[in-house]
Amino acid sequence: MPNRRILIESLPQDRLAPENFAMDTTDVPEAGAGEVLCRTLALTVGAGQRAGLQGSASYAAAPESGRVMNGTAVARVEESRADGIAVGDLVTCPSGWQDYAVHAAKAVNRVEGGGDPAHHLGVYGTNGLTAYFGLFDLGEPKAGQTLVVSAAAGSVGHIVGQMAKIVGCRVVGVAGSDEKCRLLTEDLGFDAAVNYRDANFRGSFREACGDGIDIYFDNTGGEILGGALRRMKPHGRIVCCGVVSQYDTGNPAPGPRGIPGLLVNNRVRMEGFLVFDYASRYGEGRAQMREWVESGRLKPLQDEFHGLEEAPNAFIDLLAGGNTGTRIIRVAD
Amino acid sequence: MPNRRILIESLPQDRLAPENFAMDTTDVPEAGAGEVLCRTLALTVGAGQRAGLQGSASYAAAPESGRVMNGTAVARVEESRADGIAVGDLVTCPSGWQDYAVHAAKAVNRVEGGGDPAHHLGVYGTNGLTAYFGLFDLGEPKAGQTLVVSAAAGSVGHIVGQMAKIVGCRVVGVAGSDEKCRLLTEDLGFDAAVNYRDANFRGSFREACGDGIDIYFDNTGGEILGGALRRMKPHGRIVCCGVVSQYDTGNPAPGPRGIPGLLVNNRVRMEGFLVFDYASRYGEGRAQMREWVESGRLKPLQDEFHGLEEAPNAFIDLLAGGNTGTRIIRVAD
Repeated sequence: MPNRRILIESLPQDRLAPENFAMDTTDVPEAGAGEVLCRTLALTVGAGQRAGLQGSASYAAAPESGRVMNGTAVARVEESRADGIAVGDLVTCPSGWQDYAVHAAKAVNRVEGGGDPAHHLGVYGTNGLTAYFGLFDLGEPKAGQTLVVSAAAGSVGHIVGQMAKIVGCRVVGVAGSDEKCRLLTEDLGFDAAVNYRDANFRGSFREACGDGIDIYFDNTGGEILGGALRRMKPHGRIVCCGVVSQYDTGNPAPGPRGIPGLLVNNRVRMEGFLVFDYASRYGEGRAQMREWVESGRLKPLQDEFHGLEEAPNAFIDLLAGGNTGTRIIRVAD
Repeated sequence: MPNRRILIESLPQDRLAPENFAMDTTDVPEAGAGEVLCRTLALTVGAGQRAGLQGSASYAAAPESGRVMNGTAVARVEESRADGIAVGDLVTCPSGWQDYAVHAAKAVNRVEGGGDPAHHLGVYGTNGLTAYFGLFDLGEPKAGQTLVVSAAAGSVGHIVGQMAKIVGCRVVGVAGSDEKCRLLTEDLGFDAAVNYRDANFRGSFREACGDGIDIYFDNTGGEILGGALRRMKPHGRIVCCGVVSQYDTGNPAPGPRGIPGLLVNNRVRMEGFLVFDYASRYGEGRAQMREWVESGRLKPLQDEFHGLEEAPNAFIDLLAGGNTGTRIIRVAD
């Protein structure tokens, strides 16, 4: 049984391209003592992984060329030499882009509950937890406040907006197509959605923000951040979650004008976070989101590519804003 | 008895100049019912007032041309038609740049305690309170942490640095001359001080910051903020207090590179504040600082100009970085 792998062939100097990846095939590895062999069922890709390909500029360790591309998988255990993990268990694990991987037992997380296994890469995985802790711990939403979220139809944004609605906020999404905007308002209950690629974006955005923004959940940085900054209410909070506008480039733009002057004038707090710091509270976040998902108040979105070989295309298209919800690559059933 | 006044003759388009001000003389006004007549003893000027002259871009209401230049005074009450305020009382009040002003009783604050009345414009006034609440409420200093403060020999900075030393921080000041740097390390107990006008500033700054910055108290914005941002430790705090690098210009610079990416990677919190929001806690701040001043642990610095007519020069020179500590203009004894 061969193990197909997708390797980083070269680090991108500017925009990521299919040529930055190459596929090879090896033997399936065997689990040693205390290890498990995991069969990849599905992978997810996220914009933050592009930051990893910028090397030391990112929080993620820089992948080297010639290594298997990193990524989180949901997998089935096919062989176990570790206590407490059985063949057939469902786990999430850092397998990267390949069919099989061997992991130490402590590197995998057993997941439970029914439904689509891919949800463990989305709403119950890093995306959902990022949305949950960023919104509630940093954003501190209160009923009646206005929340704006960028990349609102994205893997984190669509969860942020729906949770803010659940606690009574007025929610405005910023997304990259009219179709995504319709999805946000018609299917997910957002109060307004604005297409940042529209020629009238500035005016539409100003109008959608009403008398100002209490919480801006920033997945993009760049011009959308600059626009939100000018509309923050006194004592507003900017949750800095991601910088998708700056990942797929060799030359990050300067920061928005008005930093730090506008922060002072409006007493605004701007705070970055990484979800990994909340690891001890993941159970709390997952339990709350599972309750909302099962009661139908929170709809997890995902879009899908089929086949390991599609992973590079799925990633490149994601960086161009192609995804709706969590992007899933189905690798095996 | 004439009342000399300094008026805003025109709003500056670029750098502030003496021609933006004009002096005239009127009669001393009389106090009406519920009012007091205040004789200005001393005025202070601060860089934040320059922001006011930029009009709507600032938190301060825009002064109009033809009006008395705004500013805080310490004054002696010469006539009182208000309950609870007696002739001879010492007060702080928003008299602006003039010898006399009439105020409603609620617009003046009686001050007590011996010592130089000008201290009520410095360590016990807005400067000291800004340092106190910015440092302790936003900066959250802990013993052993590294604090960096810009405009460190300035009206707020020299108090921030000394208070951070009192609670056990390692303190690095950034200032605009070697003389100021010597003052910080030799007289005020700073652990290190770096001259931002020095050709080797980048290297000296990096060295002074050691293994990184826990708290950056920012009075300047601009390049010093950019440099500090790159050296923040995980979970560091940036206290956004002022933007002196951007006040005296018609064309504020873009924000520093790395916003918001560096905030995310290092989980940094960046927060603006205005001291006026802490009005209900001024007593707490003043009592603590008075204890430190009287025990000799906190040395308030001020530098002085003599004569109301010197106010424009004192202000223009301050914007060029000329001051050490709180800038005082003595108007009468």
